[in-house]
Amino acid sequence: MEYVLADHQYGKAETRLVRIYRDTARHQIRDLNVSTCLRGNFADAYLYGDQAKVLPTDSQKNTAYAFALEHGVTDIETYALALAKHFADDIEPVHAARVEVDEYAWDRVQVAAGDHPHAFVRGSQEVRTATATAEGRGREQRVWILSGLQDLVLLKSTGSEFAGFLQDRYTTLAETHDRVLATSLTARWRHKRTDADWNAINASIRQVLIEQFATVHSLALQQTLWQMGKAVLAAHADIAEIRLSAPNKHHFLVDLSPFGLDNRGEVFHADDRPYGLIQCAVERDDAPPAGPVWDSPNLFAG
Amino acid sequence: MEYVLADHQYGKAETRLVRIYRDTARHQIRDLNVSTCLRGNFADAYLYGDQAKVLPTDSQKNTAYAFALEHGVTDIETYALALAKHFADDIEPVHAARVEVDEYAWDRVQVAAGDHPHAFVRGSQEVRTATATAEGRGREQRVWILSGLQDLVLLKSTGSEFAGFLQDRYTTLAETHDRVLATSLTARWRHKRTDADWNAINASIRQVLIEQFATVHSLALQQTLWQMGKAVLAAHADIAEIRLSAPNKHHFLVDLSPFGLDNRGEVFHADDRPYGLIQCAVERDDAPPAGPVWDSPNLFAG
Amino acid sequence: MEYVLADHQYGKAETRLVRIYRDTARHQIRDLNVSTCLRGNFADAYLYGDQAKVLPTDSQKNTAYAFALEHGVTDIETYALALAKHFADDIEPVHAARVEVDEYAWDRVQVAAGDHPHAFVRGSQEVRTATATAEGRGREQRVWILSGLQDLVLLKSTGSEFAGFLQDRYTTLAETHDRVLATSLTARWRHKRTDADWNAINASIRQVLIEQFATVHSLALQQTLWQMGKAVLAAHADIAEIRLSAPNKHHFLVDLSPFGLDNRGEVFHADDRPYGLIQCAVERDDAPPAGPVWDSPNLFAG
Amino acid sequence: MEYVLADHQYGKAETRLVRIYRDTARHQIRDLNVSTCLRGNFADAYLYGDQAKVLPTDSQKNTAYAFALEHGVTDIETYALALAKHFADDIEPVHAARVEVDEYAWDRVQVAAGDHPHAFVRGSQEVRTATATAEGRGREQRVWILSGLQDLVLLKSTGSEFAGFLQDRYTTLAETHDRVLATSLTARWRHKRTDADWNAINASIRQVLIEQFATVHSLALQQTLWQMGKAVLAAHADIAEIRLSAPNKHHFLVDLSPFGLDNRGEVFHADDRPYGLIQCAVERDDAPPAGPVWDSPNLFAG
Repeated sequence: MEYVLADHQYGKAETRLVRIYRDTARHQIRDLNVSTCLRGNFADAYLYGDQAKVLPTDSQKNTAYAFALEHGVTDIETYALALAKHFADDIEPVHAARVEVDEYAWDRVQVAAGDHPHAFVRGSQEVRTATATAEGRGREQRVWILSGLQDLVLLKSTGSEFAGFLQDRYTTLAETHDRVLATSLTARWRHKRTDADWNAINASIRQVLIEQFATVHSLALQQTLWQMGKAVLAAHADIAEIRLSAPNKHHFLVDLSPFGLDNRGEVFHADDRPYGLIQCAVERDDAPPAGPVWDSPNLFAG
Repeated sequence: MEYVLADHQYGKAETRLVRIYRDTARHQIRDLNVSTCLRGNFADAYLYGDQAKVLPTDSQKNTAYAFALEHGVTDIETYALALAKHFADDIEPVHAARVEVDEYAWDRVQVAAGDHPHAFVRGSQEVRTATATAEGRGREQRVWILSGLQDLVLLKSTGSEFAGFLQDRYTTLAETHDRVLATSLTARWRHKRTDADWNAINASIRQVLIEQFATVHSLALQQTLWQMGKAVLAAHADIAEIRLSAPNKHHFLVDLSPFGLDNRGEVFHADDRPYGLIQCAVERDDAPPAGPVWDSPNLFAG
Repeated sequence: MEYVLADHQYGKAETRLVRIYRDTARHQIRDLNVSTCLRGNFADAYLYGDQAKVLPTDSQKNTAYAFALEHGVTDIETYALALAKHFADDIEPVHAARVEVDEYAWDRVQVAAGDHPHAFVRGSQEVRTATATAEGRGREQRVWILSGLQDLVLLKSTGSEFAGFLQDRYTTLAETHDRVLATSLTARWRHKRTDADWNAINASIRQVLIEQFATVHSLALQQTLWQMGKAVLAAHADIAEIRLSAPNKHHFLVDLSPFGLDNRGEVFHADDRPYGLIQCAVERDDAPPAGPVWDSPNLFAG
Repeated sequence: MEYVLADHQYGKAETRLVRIYRDTARHQIRDLNVSTCLRGNFADAYLYGDQAKVLPTDSQKNTAYAFALEHGVTDIETYALALAKHFADDIEPVHAARVEVDEYAWDRVQVAAGDHPHAFVRGSQEVRTATATAEGRGREQRVWILSGLQDLVLLKSTGSEFAGFLQDRYTTLAETHDRVLATSLTARWRHKRTDADWNAINASIRQVLIEQFATVHSLALQQTLWQMGKAVLAAHADIAEIRLSAPNKHHFLVDLSPFGLDNRGEVFHADDRPYGLIQCAVERDDAPPAGPVWDSPNLFAG
């Protein structure tokens, strides 16, 4: 019997990089968190401590910074793809590279004269994400791009029901036909294309998601997610698939009757934990294969 | 020699309360984190475990919920003041009550038809704060109101210097006449009034702070803070004092010269720790006494 | 062209449950965070909002509490397996259930007389984890058990090198033959067995991991991880596979030469971000199939 | 009317510093988070942007590192005091310096042969703290030292009551004579001395706190805190005062009666928020004046 080195990968996580465009007096800013992850022929490093094929994670960090200057960051998809292709093309032991980029939003400060040219205020806590994966090199190379968002916190104060559910021995929940529905959405969508106006496409998809959440009368968070996903595919022919993960952030109606008060959907306790967690993938029936893009980057389930 | 029970206080911290206004189809939402803190004649609880004068923190929580229904939450200052006055007036052993409220921002979802009537998206991570303190009861009662904000993250990509500083044996920092200046501002301002259009005043003060940050050419974060504080007092005759605490969130220019690249203020590393921490209070020379409002609510320095 | 509901699952996340054993005066405590996740025939909930086959997440939470009383929590593996089997066996639309449990450590308070019978102090921040998955029901049912730990923070102040690595255009890192090596280990191991003395096995594996980290002279974190994983398999014939994920928490030697000081490995800056991230799986060549256990529970890569 | 610069201070927060002692093969480790804060004649920096009297926070960070080498870190009190005295003595515009140090615990790894000489595992999440304040310079200088701890998480599974409390209109809480009592203690104690065996004293005080929590039959968290504080003063004549802040981390008994189960203090829900927050100071009646040590380091109440 032998022990086998199975899956393995390594990289540099969470390089916090800010790119300023200052070619004109009206500056622009891209505020990123970049993680690179390489797969390939690194067994000797594990088995024998031999680093000859290991590009230091410090070099990967340097590359992220250098590419931000040389290639710029017009959008995080293009930037992530350039990095992923570079590692797969130029670092011989690398078989596949995965680059994940989070972007934090900044709004331009408004002053009396209008937009300020070089002052910014952090926008929403929502994070825009992109993942580029490149496998192989040169003409054999295949690439995939995911875009996404996380911590998009949505709430509707009516238009949500939950009733007619399965009951078992442990069921005590009352049915409701009017509840608060709130979530902190994480979404990832897989593009068919590898070159596009990513900023415009993603802004449009975000708006579709929000509008569906708002306007679909919800019989369950499951149904809301399906409608959100389907609407994205319907509006964007170049999206192969979308995956949605939505905690059900419970808002419990507070019983004020002991104080002689009638609380008709007006005062809620926003609970921290536990929360429901509803997830689904919606895809076209003719979607191209996803390759490795949905593999967990942590080797773990969880 | 004797042991003395000196300062003591107790309360309910972080009651997460959401108030929905649904009187018309166009709902409104107030999303709060409420903390109550009582001071008074509670020595017997400490010395003898006698709870006869101790209103349970659970009752304080209930009161926060009930007041949100009965009194509503048109703004957090009025709501906090109502709660503080109630505890000081109606609970006999209470000598002083302090109520702190954080508010989380929600924006209305935009759909094709305009504002959605009952769907919301979380806005900035910035938090609005109010603190109301009531001492004594009835006609002897005195009250103070602080408003504020925290996690207002600001950045300017030029218009900031740091030079001419004191040098000692341990100084290696280079002078700079063009740097990124970024902070996550916490501010608290003390009102002279106890009744006002709090929403309007606070929105105006926030805008003054942001505009000053943007437009003052910064020779140091200290000078920027002073200008921000002074401008608030100049614009609002009813503000007695403002206190500002500003971490200097360092953005270090990345040296790309080893790679033959000239990084002229375009690529930065956003560092997590350590950070400078600059703080000041700006007040009118005729400001009325602050009473207990700046005392630490934790009994601690730190 | 059609839209397809592909992967989907739902459950209750992060039920914070404390089980006290008080059968004798010497109490015992189990402090858990329980997450349940069900897969099965739930398409109607997504497509039509029909909940007839959906067991509410609230009922799942209730089940977690009830099982903690009825079945007890002698160890988290047995408890998780009981829950997973219940959902798969007894809830008709469920095809597979996955139950993840985190456990927080408590030590018994030491007083002059020895162990205190009912007072406890939180131990290390380290978390013990278990995941049980059950597919199918009755005699067709298959089950898998993972155990693990996370946030096991380890540091060695010498006995670690990093040299002989691949160099590219972006490499500036200096080789070192004596550095601080620190990590916050996450590990998951897959058992062949579904019934065992889990507490003893896991304590033993944890000790093997720590000892290997301490005693292997490290030529790279990769090599250290491989040795750790291999040693676990060598010591425990019933472990099919182990996966390790290790951030390289960088400790940078501070340059004190400007102050005339010679810092020979004595003063370090502990950096927050970025960090290297090294991961690997070590398995027996005759390991039974892993089934779904390593699938991401979030449907996402990331 | 004029605007006045009132309180102001600045410093470097959260310098993450690790000091390794490697004089013998048996290494020792001190893992610190250091924050320095200076008060003095810095008005020109605020009013005019003139930095001539401002020692950069970067220099303060360098000083923290250099002192860790030159003066060492045998305990955090001595190290903090050396830094505070240096800033007050040697930097002319400084009137007072406050240095806060957090220390993270590491245990020595145990291997078959016993203690490992240079491998460590992070201990409890509990943090040890010290604050040194120096005012004035040379023979006029006065100093104060606080020691403390935070995140000491304690739980007792019986021996705790809460009954006989004040009831008002909003009280619904039931009395109980047997509950789980849990807290995450923060404590700070003020020394009379400025030179002592700090490691031994603090370890002893910590043990007194824990033993009192365990052995006092609790009629309320207030009474437990008073007993804890009083016992520290009784055991340590050189402690002038101790302040305690204790969230009441609620553990709610889960009602399992709908499932035909009788939950007699065995299964609890550990709630996140809200929590009670109980605070007190216990001092000797002949305690020397506290000077500025309890002033909030943030200029804020909260």
